Parts: sequence; structure tokens; C-alpha cells
Amino acid sequence: MSARLPFPEWMACVQERVEKALARHLPSAEAIPARLHRAMRYSCLNGGKRVRPLLAFASGEICAAPEEKLEIVACALEMIHAYSLVHDDLPCMDNDVLRRGRPTCHVEYGEATALLAGDALQTQAFLLLARESLGDPAVQLEMLRVLAHACGSLGMAGGQAIDLDAVGRALELPELELMHAMKTGALIRAAATLGALCGEGLPDGARQALDRFAKRAGLLFQVVDDILDCTASTATLGKTAGKDSAADKPSCVGLMGLERAREFAGQLREQAIESLASFGERARRLVELTDFIARRRF
Amino acid sequence: MSARLPFPEWMACVQERVEKALARHLPSAEAIPARLHRAMRYSCLNGGKRVRPLLAFASGEICAAPEEKLEIVACALEMIHAYSLVHDDLPCMDNDVLRRGRPTCHVEYGEATALLAGDALQTQAFLLLARESLGDPAVQLEMLRVLAHACGSLGMAGGQAIDLDAVGRALELPELELMHAMKTGALIRAAATLGALCGEGLPDGARQALDRFAKRAGLLFQVVDDILDCTASTATLGKTAGKDSAADKPSCVGLMGLERAREFAGQLREQAIESLASFGERARRLVELTDFIARRRF
Repeated sequence: MSARLPFPEWMACVQERVEKALARHLPSAEAIPARLHRAMRYSCLNGGKRVRPLLAFASGEICAAPEEKLEIVACALEMIHAYSLVHDDLPCMDNDVLRRGRPTCHVEYGEATALLAGDALQTQAFLLLARESLGDPAVQLEMLRVLAHACGSLGMAGGQAIDLDAVGRALELPELELMHAMKTGALIRAAATLGALCGEGLPDGARQALDRFAKRAGLLFQVVDDILDCTASTATLGKTAGKDSAADKPSCVGLMGLERAREFAGQLREQAIESLASFGERARRLVELTDFIARRRF
Repeated sequence: MSARLPFPEWMACVQERVEKALARHLPSAEAIPARLHRAMRYSCLNGGKRVRPLLAFASGEICAAPEEKLEIVACALEMIHAYSLVHDDLPCMDNDVLRRGRPTCHVEYGEATALLAGDALQTQAFLLLARESLGDPAVQLEMLRVLAHACGSLGMAGGQAIDLDAVGRALELPELELMHAMKTGALIRAAATLGALCGEGLPDGARQALDRFAKRAGLLFQVVDDILDCTASTATLGKTAGKDSAADKPSCVGLMGLERAREFAGQLREQAIESLASFGERARRLVELTDFIARRRF
């Protein structure tokens, strides 16, 4: 994808490419069991911002990563993300009925099928990352470890468990940051690392700098999410607005108020971009993506 | 493990070894989030027959596989199996309260934690298989593909979806066999393949013979399960007896009656053992294990 494309066009290109790749890498809607496969496709192929794929592609530009490989890791990341949304929306979790402007998976297909669709999407992500040729098998194993670590009990699933335990309980900022770092931050960091692993590799120092960036960008993403949950409408978000505060869930806005949450987001944006200084022009897409995350309205 | 040990002692050795390895390879009960980690350990470390680990160890003997590697694949298989049981027992699926003689995970920890524990157990299986050193990275990737293929929408999760759709509907034998082949057979076949992949490898013909064996052994396991569901007590099984027929679930006994189901099991046992002929004495444990599966009373 041309480095000269303006950011909105670049973003649209990546989104379209990932949508098409997901359609190819998910089981066909006709294959048996068709209902399960339709539910999997319904949950993945419904637009979405594709923040994790965008991050993988933008990180890939630092390491001259081939787009065919970035496409694979982008699909695996998005399948994991979709699985987590399907399960989070279930009645025993957030019990939500609206996602990306459409009925949630269990509303459309029933709870049992939604449970299995989430399960099978997680598996499909690992199958894809193990199946497709991504060059050196040792690096490919490392990619699998990065993804599994990010979404397991010490990452995304663990963050969700902390969130469950925290409902109705006042969290301090460090606790809240830990929850966000695990629940959404871990997969966002994995996206940056995986994008870089698709390319020529980074020396340790540069890899750490990229990870520092991704930590801050991940927290920024979540703080903006908290702000939007309070300030945007359900129609704009495509998901139920105000549900975190209604459910007495811990959030940055609840903890520090809207004004200070906005300041905090501004600081995180600056710190994230600072972490990229040593990459120079190669990090242009990452800087643009950070601005997009900071300014998004949906 | 000495090849000279009588089968019951060999089985006890493998079971104990796997129990200890699982305790090491699961996140500590003290690590945050502790409740999630306790639920994961509760669901894995509760005995069970460990049929898939036994099969991996027995197949490993054909290929002189080192026990340290077999232990890893056995743990990964058992984590996947435990995840599937936790999710199958949930209220939106089989809604079962008893498993291995104890309250099911959601009864003990609540539905939301059980959902996450199942999710995280699946991830932990892939993390383990990607993380531990198993020799040639290309073979390790193949192992990951075998496991992921076996438990995804074209394997275990898919079989569960077919089972859901089939409740209250009369299935013909071929349909029932397909459901069983996916729901339980796929992971049992994967156990045999993974055990062999831990060793020196098999030529294509031998690999196919082992897979033919595992297909038949997997179906045998399920037919015996159907028979026990009708004939054994809840106390003996450690799970709710008679629940498949009560739920009008498709089963071999429902389809062909108890007498013919027993004959069918006998044929499958013979066919499974026949598939092992070319391995000679190296397949002794597999033959013994087949007899154990055919004769088990719980």
C-alpha cells in the first residue's frame, strides 16, 4: 500500500483488504455446520474500525513487512477480537443486544450458537496463524506465543475477569489501568508486535520502544472509549451508549471526571507519539493512527 | 515409563504424571485474577480418565517419543477437553450440574467466570504448545495445526453445533457418526497423531494406519459412552446418567437399541485393533487401551 496515500485512504484500503481476507479465511457459510459458520461470519464480517489490523499494518511499515503476511496476522487478531465481543455480549456477561449497529450474535443466533461461534473463532485465529506460511517457523511460533499470551488469563480474558470482579466497587487509577492493560491493551500491544514480526525484525531497543508506544496507544484507546461511552449516542457508536456507567462499571470518566479524562487522553497521545521518535519517518502511519484513535467520535 | 508395567499400573503412572504436569502448566491459583485461575484449575485438576493423554502416550510408544514431549501435548489436549466440558455444561448448552462427581464449574464459580475459564483454557492449550520446546519448529507448527483443526468449527466445536441442531430430530447412523466423529472423535484422533509427532515420525502409510485406528477408537469411545449413559448410575459415572435420552439427544442406543449398540462396540474394537497390525509389539499399549475403552464401566 503506497506510503503516499493520505491517512483516510490508507485506512480505507487496509479495512477493505482485511474484510476481504477475513471472508476468505473464515469457514464458508455453506460448510457443515452451516449455522455455526454463519454465526462466525456474522460476528467478524460486519465492518468495525479494525483498529488492531490497522495497528499491525502501521507497525509493519517500520519493518518493511510484506502485506500478505500482515493480512494473516490482521485476520487472526480480528478473529480473537470478534470472539471476545461475542462472549462479552452474552447474557451472563454484559447482556448486550446491539453491536456495530446490528443485533448481537446471541440475539441473532441464540446463546448456544453464539457461545460456540466465539469458541470456534478463537480456534480459527490460532489455526490461521499456524497454517499459513509466514516464513521462518521459529518466528511463526513466536507470533503464536505473542497472540496466545495476549488473549489468555494473563491478558484479555484475565482483564475481563478483573472487570467482572470490579463491578460496583471503587477502583483506584492503578487498578483501573491494570484492568484496561489486560482487557484491551494486551491485544493492541500484540497487534504492534505481530506487525513488526512480519517484517525484517527489530533490535531489542526498537522493539521495546514500539511496545512502549503500543502500551500507551492501548490505554489511550480505552480512555477514549470511556469518554465516548459517556458523551456519544447509541446511534453514533453502533453499540449501547452509557452502559458502563449504567452498570456501575469502573471507568476513567467515573474515576476522574470527563474533563480530567480528556486531559489524560491528551497526555497519553503525546507520550505514545514520543515513544516513536527513534523510528523517524517510518513511523508516520503509527503517528497518524494515534491521532485517529485520540480524535475518533465512534 | 517401562514397557513392562502391567496396563493398570502404566495407566496410573500416566494419569499421575499428567495431573502433576497440568498443575505446573496452569496459571497459579494465587496469580491475578485469582478467581479465574482457580476456576481453570478446578476444571482441569479433578482426575478424569485422561483418555486423550493415555492415547498420546500409547501412540508415542510407536515412535519412541520422549515422555517430556508427550507430557506437553497431553496437557494441551486435556486443557482443550476441559474447556469443552466447562462450556458444554453451561446453562445455555447442556445445563448440567455434576461433572466428575463434583459441581460443574459454573455451579461452583458462576456462569461468567466459567465462560471465561473455558475461554482461557483453550488459549492456555495453544500457548503451552507454542511455548514449550518440542524440537523442530516446523513439526511444532504442525502440532498446533493438528490441535486447532481438531477443536475448531470443523472438529469438536462443529460437532457440538450439529448436536445442538439435532436435539429432538431423528438422525440416521451416518449423520450420528459424523456428529460423533467431530464432537469427540476429532480430538481423540488428534491425540494419537500428536503422540506420534512427538517421536521420530511415521511414514505416510503408518500414519494413515494409526489415524484409521484412532477414528475407530474414537467412535468406540462414544458408543460406549452412549451405552453407559443408559446403563450406569450417576454415582458410578460422576456425571448425570440418562441425560442424553432424557434430553432426546441423538445416541447410538436410541438409534439401534442397547443390544445392537453393544455388538457395534464389539465390531469397532476389533476393527480398531486390526488397524494396528502392522505396528506389531510397539502397539501393545494402544491395544490394551482399546480394550480398556471397550470395557470401561464409568
